[in-house]
Amino acid sequence: MTTASQLTPVKWEQDHLLLLDQTKLPVVTEYLTLTTIEQVWEAIRHMQVRGAPAIGMAAAYGLYLGIRDSGAASFAAFWTEFEEKAAYLATSRPTAVNLFWAIERIKDRVQQEKEQPLSTIKQAVLQEALAIQAEDERVCKTIGENLLSLLHDGMGILTHCNPGALATAAYGTATAPLYLAKERGWNLKVFADETRPVLQGARLTAYELQRAGIDVTLICDNMAAMVMAQGKVQAVIVGTDRVAANGDVANKIGTYGVAVLAQAHGIPFYVAAPLSSIDLNTPTGAEIPIEERPAEEITHGFGKQVAPDQIKVYNPAFDVTPARFITAIVTETGIFKPEEIAKSKN
Amino acid sequence: MTTASQLTPVKWEQDHLLLLDQTKLPVVTEYLTLTTIEQVWEAIRHMQVRGAPAIGMAAAYGLYLGIRDSGAASFAAFWTEFEEKAAYLATSRPTAVNLFWAIERIKDRVQQEKEQPLSTIKQAVLQEALAIQAEDERVCKTIGENLLSLLHDGMGILTHCNPGALATAAYGTATAPLYLAKERGWNLKVFADETRPVLQGARLTAYELQRAGIDVTLICDNMAAMVMAQGKVQAVIVGTDRVAANGDVANKIGTYGVAVLAQAHGIPFYVAAPLSSIDLNTPTGAEIPIEERPAEEITHGFGKQVAPDQIKVYNPAFDVTPARFITAIVTETGIFKPEEIAKSKN
Repeated sequence: MTTASQLTPVKWEQDHLLLLDQTKLPVVTEYLTLTTIEQVWEAIRHMQVRGAPAIGMAAAYGLYLGIRDSGAASFAAFWTEFEEKAAYLATSRPTAVNLFWAIERIKDRVQQEKEQPLSTIKQAVLQEALAIQAEDERVCKTIGENLLSLLHDGMGILTHCNPGALATAAYGTATAPLYLAKERGWNLKVFADETRPVLQGARLTAYELQRAGIDVTLICDNMAAMVMAQGKVQAVIVGTDRVAANGDVANKIGTYGVAVLAQAHGIPFYVAAPLSSIDLNTPTGAEIPIEERPAEEITHGFGKQVAPDQIKVYNPAFDVTPARFITAIVTETGIFKPEEIAKSKN
Repeated sequence: MTTASQLTPVKWEQDHLLLLDQTKLPVVTEYLTLTTIEQVWEAIRHMQVRGAPAIGMAAAYGLYLGIRDSGAASFAAFWTEFEEKAAYLATSRPTAVNLFWAIERIKDRVQQEKEQPLSTIKQAVLQEALAIQAEDERVCKTIGENLLSLLHDGMGILTHCNPGALATAAYGTATAPLYLAKERGWNLKVFADETRPVLQGARLTAYELQRAGIDVTLICDNMAAMVMAQGKVQAVIVGTDRVAANGDVANKIGTYGVAVLAQAHGIPFYVAAPLSSIDLNTPTGAEIPIEERPAEEITHGFGKQVAPDQIKVYNPAFDVTPARFITAIVTETGIFKPEEIAKSKN
């Protein structure tokens, strides 16, 4: 399925789940072997798995681990047990939307199979988990192919945060064309913004691209402008948390600044957006709430106090890039001008 | 002299030197009491004092501490001893231009006084050190007054790095109008970029402005664009390491990006520049060499490894902001359009 050089954060192997322990990155690469739902609960709770799609997949496999040894003798008994396990798993990270989405999807599947023998139902749960993963991989790969049609060999690409394989089934979203380019033997030169305050670019994007043998250079966020001025960047590709109906894009803090800089330097700015992130019920970016995160992420984030006690801090987790700074939004259904993003769902 | 609330990094007190130990900032505020040239050498070497003007001042006082107890019986014997001490002090930080400048200035003064009794010459050394400090304070304060004429009460001001009191005799350069505004009872709202990778904004600017009771909010560098878009910033003020003859400005990495963002948001961008930083022998910014610093500043700077082993890193210490992004360069002699900066020296 995936390219040999690419890391997969969630892997089902015969009778157990392998999870790349993301809390140990980028220093240690270690897979956890999970055989019980309780272990999956712990891994989600302690962010050993992260990224919306990856959390959903882990939960789906976790649910299977929770019911595969069920000794229930009737569907009614099985269903009671299944719902208990699902409710338990949902408490692992109550803010993760994909966690609930995956659990609901598996519930639906179980209901569809209710007339079948319990052994068949158990297998259906595993099949559904595998399908969730396969679909996510297909979406990412298709986004990557669409983006790749906008690039060419030898380009410099700047990215921000970790719209990467580590958060998805494989390929990532904004990183997907980078992996596909590598598979085709292209030499792209990638610049990864470290992405303060949580450093997803340094800890995750730089890590996963380096592991895949992609030419990646880590920079501080405030170096992006200079790298652009030096002519080293021919395209910017970022991911997104939510696209509004008018094509405004919410993404990790710092994305908006990169977009303004890209426009000032005449560099195209692309957003990789699975259809699941396109929210036509939100008219514009102004309606997207911006979470503010604790000051400690900035003042004490990596083990050492770097700002004075009691300092006032502004720490928005996301920003909104207005549609006018965006060259194209790329989904699994095609390449769209931001103002025409509604067409992506047709 | 200086406002009560303002920290002074270098203070002469009767018979000893007080140095604010900047290696302990922003967590601990502690002054070192230095009574020997050897202690001053150590303090410069270990960066307990930093910033070009402050290093020059410390060296000048250090030279006085080195010769004040000289038992020489003739000027010739004194001069030999004096030159030894000066050469010794110069080894404390061989790349600090202001260190050499201060030593040379004191040497000249000693030569001017050579016909005087040795006790008079010793006093002249101390007077010269005090004069260096007083002149630096005057320059900073005048730059501050000139900048203040461009601002008004209630404004939001964004700054980058630490063009602050901690690097100078008092007031700093870009921070000078902020202290003067505070003295006048204005309420400016300052945003301090943390300034990766070395975090001078978080560790130093946020610290010194907070101590002075100025309303300061710490942000990550990649939040500046959002704060501008929110209408919270009416002026950007930065310092400089060198101004070329055409008005291009070299300053801490990230300055160029802030300048591009300011222009995109219609916000004036001011550079605080003592005449000593204006280098008419450098025709344009293209001739200013950009030092690249070790990868570890980015990958290990917070005390914990935050990027994978062997990752490729680009870490330029400075960038160059072309004159076209600069609204005005403000010196102790006035306010200049960047393309007319040569007039500042007339």
